[in-house]
Formats: sequence, C-alpha cells, structure tokens
Amino acid sequence: MKYDIDALMQAKNLDAIVVIGSAENNPPMYYMTGGGHVSAATLIKKRGEKAVLYCNDMERDEAAKSGLTIRLYGEYPLLELFKDANGDGVLMMALRMQRIFNTLGVKGRVGLYGHEDVSATFATLSRLQKLMPEVEFVGETREESLFNQAMETKSEEEVARIREMGKHTTEVVRLTAEFLTSCDVRDDEVLLKKDGSPLTIGDVKQKINLWLAERDAVPSEGFIFSIGRDAGVPHSMGNPTDLMRLGQTIVFDIYPQERGGGYFYDFTRTWSLGYAMPEAQELYDQVQEIYDKVLENMDLNVPFKEYQRMTCEYFESKGHKTPMNTPAPQEGYVHSLGHGVGINIHERPFSGFQASDDQRLAPGVVITVEPGLYYPEKGMGFRIEDTYWVRPDGKMELLADYPYDFVLEMKKWKK
Amino acid sequence: MKYDIDALMQAKNLDAIVVIGSAENNPPMYYMTGGGHVSAATLIKKRGEKAVLYCNDMERDEAAKSGLTIRLYGEYPLLELFKDANGDGVLMMALRMQRIFNTLGVKGRVGLYGHEDVSATFATLSRLQKLMPEVEFVGETREESLFNQAMETKSEEEVARIREMGKHTTEVVRLTAEFLTSCDVRDDEVLLKKDGSPLTIGDVKQKINLWLAERDAVPSEGFIFSIGRDAGVPHSMGNPTDLMRLGQTIVFDIYPQERGGGYFYDFTRTWSLGYAMPEAQELYDQVQEIYDKVLENMDLNVPFKEYQRMTCEYFESKGHKTPMNTPAPQEGYVHSLGHGVGINIHERPFSGFQASDDQRLAPGVVITVEPGLYYPEKGMGFRIEDTYWVRPDGKMELLADYPYDFVLEMKKWKK
Repeated sequence: MKYDIDALMQAKNLDAIVVIGSAENNPPMYYMTGGGHVSAATLIKKRGEKAVLYCNDMERDEAAKSGLTIRLYGEYPLLELFKDANGDGVLMMALRMQRIFNTLGVKGRVGLYGHEDVSATFATLSRLQKLMPEVEFVGETREESLFNQAMETKSEEEVARIREMGKHTTEVVRLTAEFLTSCDVRDDEVLLKKDGSPLTIGDVKQKINLWLAERDAVPSEGFIFSIGRDAGVPHSMGNPTDLMRLGQTIVFDIYPQERGGGYFYDFTRTWSLGYAMPEAQELYDQVQEIYDKVLENMDLNVPFKEYQRMTCEYFESKGHKTPMNTPAPQEGYVHSLGHGVGINIHERPFSGFQASDDQRLAPGVVITVEPGLYYPEKGMGFRIEDTYWVRPDGKMELLADYPYDFVLEMKKWKK
Repeated sequence: MKYDIDALMQAKNLDAIVVIGSAENNPPMYYMTGGGHVSAATLIKKRGEKAVLYCNDMERDEAAKSGLTIRLYGEYPLLELFKDANGDGVLMMALRMQRIFNTLGVKGRVGLYGHEDVSATFATLSRLQKLMPEVEFVGETREESLFNQAMETKSEEEVARIREMGKHTTEVVRLTAEFLTSCDVRDDEVLLKKDGSPLTIGDVKQKINLWLAERDAVPSEGFIFSIGRDAGVPHSMGNPTDLMRLGQTIVFDIYPQERGGGYFYDFTRTWSLGYAMPEAQELYDQVQEIYDKVLENMDLNVPFKEYQRMTCEYFESKGHKTPMNTPAPQEGYVHSLGHGVGINIHERPFSGFQASDDQRLAPGVVITVEPGLYYPEKGMGFRIEDTYWVRPDGKMELLADYPYDFVLEMKKWKK
C-alpha cells in the first residue's frame, strides 16, 4: 500500500526517493501523482516528509491535480543552466538536478525510480554523482523495488478500479464471442463477413479495438487474438491476415488499462469454434482441471510459487514439459502460473521458481491464475486466465465472471 | 536516416550500441525492430555489423518479424544465473548481460539507449561496469543522442506513414467541428446534447476517442481539448466537466500515433463557436499572421531556432512576453515554435534558443510550426499547428490540409 512507502524506505535505508519521467506510462510516477499530462517531471520524497513534484511551467495545472506540492523547473531557467554548463546538455541536466537536490536538502542514499529514457538518465546521474559525492544513487530490480513492493497490496479503491476494468473486459469478450458465433461459414470451414469475404484475425481485432474504445479501456500493450500455430506460441499476438476457421484453437488474451496509464485487468479464454479436435479437447480439459485444482487449493499467505510447483507437477504427470524439469521449454507448459496485476500488467507477487518466498497470497494482492499448454508444431495452444483479489478476510474473489466453454456453438452451422 | 547509424557510431567513437526494453513505446527499439509485442529485449549492434536481438523465448515469433538476427535469453537460463548470483537479482541481470556481451564480443565504448525502468537499468549497469572494466557505457541527452540524430531525417516511406496519420487526424478534427456546430444552444450559450443536457468537454473527448479508434489512430499521449482558462495553459488537457460554450477559445491539439508505437502526427486548431470576443479575434489574427510569415520565410538548411527568433520578435512587437526576453514566461508566447515529429512526438530538430545550430530545416526533416498566445487570466489561449515535411527538393510540404477558421458558425444559432 502507498502508506508503506516510508516504512519501505526505512527498511531499505533510503534517505530519499526520486521518481523521474512522465505521469503516464510510468507506473511509479502514476502511483504517486494519479496520472495526468505531466511529462519529464521529477518527484522527490525525503523519508518521513511529503513528496514534492517538479514540472515544466506549462504543465503546472495538470501537475496540481495530483494534490502534491508543485514546484516549477522555471525556478532554474534552462538558458541560465545552459550557460553555466557551457552548452553541455548532460551537465545542464545534472546541474538542474543538483540545484533541486540542494533546494530540498537531499543527500545520502537516494532510491531511483521511473520509466524513462535510459541514455539521458544514465548520463545525467553519472555526472551528478561526480558533482554530489554526498549522494549515493540506489537502483533496484523491478521485482524487488520499493514501488513494486508498495504496489503489491491494493486498497479497496484500487481493487474497485481493477474490477471495473474486468467488467469492461468481459463485456468485450462476450461481444466478440457473439460476433464470431453469428458468422456464416464457408464449405471449407472459413468464417465469412457479411459481404461474403473471409473473416480475418485483423477484422476481429479491429472490432475488439472499437469495443474497447467505447468503454475507455485502452489496449496499451495490445492484446492477443491468435489462431492455430500462433495460439501455440504464448506471446504471439496473432497474424492479421490469418483466416478465422472452425475447429482451431483460438487464444484470446486481453489486458486493457484505464485511459491515461492506470489500472489493468488481465483475462484469457481459449475457444474452438463449432467443434473441437479430440486432442485439443483433451489438452483443454487438462488446463481446466489444473486451473480448478489451483483455485481449490489456494490458501492465504502461501508463497505464490507453490502453486507453480503444483501446476508443473500436474502437467508433468500428464507427460508435458514444464519449467520444473526443463529450462526454458518451448512446448508444453512454458511459463509461470500467474502474476500480480495493478498499474503494471505484470507485478508482484510473481510465481516463477526464482520468485522470493515473500511473494505470497497476502491479503490485498491481486493476481492472475493462468495455466496453459502450447504445441505450436501441432498448431494449437491453450490458456485460461482470470484475475483474483485476495480479500482481507482471506477469500479469493474472482473480479470478473465469464464462462469457461471451449467449444463455442455456431448459430448458423452444424457439424 | 537509419543508414546513418554506423557513421554516427563512428563520429561518436562508439564500438557498439545497446538498446534495451520493449519494441513498443520505446522509440529506439521500435526504430530498429519495427515494433511488435517484444518485451524486455536487448538489441546489440557492433559498429559495421548487423544488429542482434535477444528476446524471451515466448516472444521469438514476434521478434522474428523484425527481420533481425534473433537469439533467445533461454541460452542463459535464469535459474542457472540465479544460482550463480546467489539469488541477487541485480547480479543475475548483470551476469546475463555479461554473457551476452562475451558471446558477441562487445567491448570498448558502448552507447546505451532505450526507454525502460531506470532503477533496474541503473543497478544492472553499475554492477556490469564492475564485472566488465573493458566496457565503458556512454549515455547521451535525448536531443543529442545517436537515435534522435538518425531519426531526424526521414525516408519517403516514413513520411508516407506520417502523412497517413495526418489524414486520419484531420478527418477526426473535421468530424469534431461538424458535431459541435450542429448542436443546439441554450439561452446562456451552453451547447446541448441531443437529450437536452449540457455538452461537456468529457463528452466531446469521448467522441474523439471513438473516431480515433475507428482509424487505428491511437491517442497514446492523450490529446488537448480545452476551453477558456484551460486553453490559456498550453499543456492543460481540458477539464472533463467543463461545459461547451459559445464565444470561448477552444484549443484542440491532437497528436495520434500508429497503433503499436509507430509514427505520430501533430496538429492544433483554435476555435470560437458562434462568435468571437473582439480581443480574442485580435490575438488569433496575430497568431495567424506570424504563422503565415514563418511559412513564407522558411528556407532550406536554416537553423530552426532562427524562426523562433522571428516569432519572438513579432510577438514582442505586439507587446507580448516571449522566451527571448523573459525566462520561462507564464503568459504571452511561452513555448518554442515547433519540433520534429516521428516515432517521438517531440524530436529533432528542436527550435528552442538552446537548440544546436545543426538542428536545421534539412531535406528530410518533418517538423511542426505552432505559434501560440496564452492568457489564462483572461480565460483564453490560441495555437495554430501543422506538420510539414522538408522535401528533398527543398520545398515545405504541408502533410495534411485543414482550414484555419477561428469562428465556427453554428448551424442552429445566430447572434
């Protein structure tokens, strides 16, 4: 939670934290400011003190919406800094940061955060480090960073926003299923558009994009709608020119975000239109079985990776490769069971075997559960994914309900 | 141009370049890969050699679409690295990068690029630097970076993509104007929706978002649609609950991007619905006059900032503050004249006074021209912006045509 930040600073022995970059598409800055059109800002928080946000003068009104203390870069006009730096752009930026640090009395161990241009950041900080030996910059892995740790547990207000995105997400999935199952089908089992031409992945994706836009649900990292072999490669987004056909596995993994860089939802269904090949049905049933088994066994405060182990053991018992015994498998069960969801589409707690034991099903975490099987050479792939909230009372709450049917019956086609 | 990269590496004395991060929302990586759903990738190019792209095994198919040589992180399994690093996440990432560098024989001066998590990047590189004293990492300011310099001039294919976004942009602007001028108007000059309730900025923005989605034009950094005082603050995005009224200045600055993180277009019009206040008309006419004057005087290979000077001189002659004589003015003409547009919404050439002389109207650049005046206390602001291509034959080509009317006549209302 946000109120954990000072305690985390204490635990990490940080005297101050600095967050750089824009308020959008930059999770730590969004977390601190609530978003808005504020670019190239610098947020500074000393331990035990309130955060101060420096921004461009033109963006003062947008920045003020954050409710934070706002100061303007104009206090240190660029043209003056430029002269002081003899036209050296890196030094100019380092000098501005130095003046900001001196104004606020920042020194000691300073945690560094944000999603920004790494070239300019690395150059500026390296120079600033020479100007200010009294400061020690501290970087952290994403997984163990202060912000990912604070964000790991959510307030009810945050959960409400994720649930709202879940509602939009499942509405769009329902519209997609209704659209697909209403299509005419050619003799060769290709779906047809109203004008009689073949329906492509690209056509379906365009409709999905519109349905998302109507709901202010932004596919900021795209979405996966793939068929056949592509469905067998977990992160293949789908080939726009592929034709929609009956009896092929379709993986639809959709993870829209609030407009302006806010909270995500994450959801996957696998479908086979009209009928399923027997082998596909068998593999789907396995994915469904372990999904159900994981859900039945989830217990408060257990490390998330324990369920990755359970999933691997199950899939290995069925003869599939998994990351438990095969490093980086390219078929079978090839990823981890799930991840936290928030302002980051992937965040703590993680469930991979290298995840730390403190990434647990603690009260307040929001996680995905998403077992899958992938056989690109067989032209098929499967994944079922939902997003759950571990409630303060210890119950796992599904944040958006949707049926698990694998075969979707076509309205105008019978086998 | 992309083919300048080796020459730029030579000029900057770089033995290799490393680009990190995802292919989307990361201009240098998009430039090298053409986009696609490839996250947390590492691209390495030694001078005079072809680029190699390391990616997660699951994303190999998406990565292959780049046409680059693809290698998989799975060559160095994370679980092994994790053991080698005794569970230290930063060291684990540094060890992986070290193995990649050793595999490819990377050493010497290595330019660092990409838009990524700065905390993990800073931590990893600081550790890697200790492991590999034979490597010197080089960061650059955005403005002077190798990629911004390469991207500064565009191929005809790149210009065609920007022009296409311009077409979509002006179509959406036309739909917006048609919608607004068709509204009923209440006695107090507030515009009404079909259901008789007042039309808000939020309502208009929602329509614009839908029209953009229909065209696969993504408002990845939002857009500005603001009225009255907000129009007087250049980067205020507009307050969703503000009512649409006659006779108020409306600044509509729209800069959509190709889906998946490609090329932008940048465009602004200022409108006053039904009628204009005399002072507003006068200020608008000044903005229009200097816009026209700049266009008439633009010459091939002149430093862009010369036109910033021309614009400031004109506005000062009319009694306005400008950055020429006032550091960081908060009213009058408060920004610079324009900027390059490409995969970045703001890129070289820049026109601010601190821009280098080599940021010129060279053949192949694509720039905005956007003079404006801002008086938040008077409740008004003005900007006119179009995007131009400096053609190889030296002519300035407007990439999307749109009328410059300030007062938009209301179809169902007369003064």
